[in-house]
Amino acid sequence: MAVMTTRRAIVQLRGPGTASAPDELAVEAPLTLSLDDDVLAVLMRTPGHDLELAAGWLVAESGVGRADDITGMQASREGDAVRVSLRTGVTPPRSRAFVTSASCGVCSADVMTLLPAPDAVLHAPGWHIDRQVLAGLPDAMRRRQRAFDRTGGLHAATLATADGELGAVREDVGRHNAVDKVIGRALFDGALPATDRLLVVSGRVSFEIVQKALAAGCAGVAAVSAPSSLAVDLARTYGLLLAGLVRGERLNVYSEPELVG
Amino acid sequence: MAVMTTRRAIVQLRGPGTASAPDELAVEAPLTLSLDDDVLAVLMRTPGHDLELAAGWLVAESGVGRADDITGMQASREGDAVRVSLRTGVTPPRSRAFVTSASCGVCSADVMTLLPAPDAVLHAPGWHIDRQVLAGLPDAMRRRQRAFDRTGGLHAATLATADGELGAVREDVGRHNAVDKVIGRALFDGALPATDRLLVVSGRVSFEIVQKALAAGCAGVAAVSAPSSLAVDLARTYGLLLAGLVRGERLNVYSEPELVG
Repeated sequence: MAVMTTRRAIVQLRGPGTASAPDELAVEAPLTLSLDDDVLAVLMRTPGHDLELAAGWLVAESGVGRADDITGMQASREGDAVRVSLRTGVTPPRSRAFVTSASCGVCSADVMTLLPAPDAVLHAPGWHIDRQVLAGLPDAMRRRQRAFDRTGGLHAATLATADGELGAVREDVGRHNAVDKVIGRALFDGALPATDRLLVVSGRVSFEIVQKALAAGCAGVAAVSAPSSLAVDLARTYGLLLAGLVRGERLNVYSEPELVG
Repeated sequence: MAVMTTRRAIVQLRGPGTASAPDELAVEAPLTLSLDDDVLAVLMRTPGHDLELAAGWLVAESGVGRADDITGMQASREGDAVRVSLRTGVTPPRSRAFVTSASCGVCSADVMTLLPAPDAVLHAPGWHIDRQVLAGLPDAMRRRQRAFDRTGGLHAATLATADGELGAVREDVGRHNAVDKVIGRALFDGALPATDRLLVVSGRVSFEIVQKALAAGCAGVAAVSAPSSLAVDLARTYGLLLAGLVRGERLNVYSEPELVG
């Protein structure tokens, strides 16, 4: 049975209260998908039902339409790879041998290779944020969303200071696009690396959202929903503040709780 | 000013009541991103702040870290393309010249070319679903999610019959992965094309979710959250039932309302 969830010790802030507690996270881990001996894609996914994942991916991305279009399928002993063979004549998928994102199944070129060295990431000296300011960031962002209330279908992102001041709020059907727009704005404004800013996002925090925050040099990430295991582990490796399930006076701190005052 | 939302006439089901009404949708549309004369990627995004989107994407995907690393940036007159030039010495992104998904910013190989011809899609003859059965599908799926309650971070998908019977429920940090797992299961079971099944998904419906439902030959899609404009337009082109914001007794039908009895 694949491990779909994992525990990390986190800090829960509940109004004025603070508690350390184990927290259950969705596991996010790479699965390398190969056609015969060629790597097709690396999917960031929650382990479990990996053969189904590979087969369903092929239905959408290739000419596979019946079970016998797939002539062979083998999971690696370590559970981190699936190798498939297709019947002659079945249109194969195009090879996409790069890390792909869990949020869409197919994504981002070799993001691991673009990560800075861990010691290259530095918060602005003495940077920290008050818990009440942190708790209020998602609501403040929501009030500045122009289109969400009308469609219910747009994600938002922004950069916030430790004083709770929000920069430009950007919206998009894609979480990652909203983050890219905000970081692009900061680039144009000469505000990168954003070592004194938190990246605020609606929705969940995957590995790739943390990677984008790292690329922009942010002090941390604050999100409305939960992070994945890999997002937490990456934030801890780089010393990024990671706050999730930020809702009113309740929030969880998954990484660097000492940055919250 | 870019158009971020658009209206479509939809059918609102509210308990026993039925109303036709205009509904506001988040726009999803492709943006072609080129480095000099080479196409880098096609991003499915909500229009608006496209130069920021391109610049932020480059911060995460290339060596761009300062505004002057980008020496030129030009949006097409039609607003569907951005062309950039980089300073000599800046590590360029790897080219990914295929359609990419709004949910992650970077996705799916030439999905347009994999769509079946519109007349190739057929519901099972006489297929339709009762409105109460349809309204209950997300809650029924939620009750079968194993890991969501513990993590708050997992999406789910399943296939449902018109009688409300659910197949295997699959969970993943990625919506698209959960859908791929379900479709892979159906492939193994010899159940494709799934012309008498609805694809039930947590979260939002992008173009790519509809594309996966089409590839599996599903009768339609039912989702907890809202669809994008392109998802609606694609469902209408192919005659797929598309129900969204399915919450208790309230739901919206964006495409093929006559399939709901």
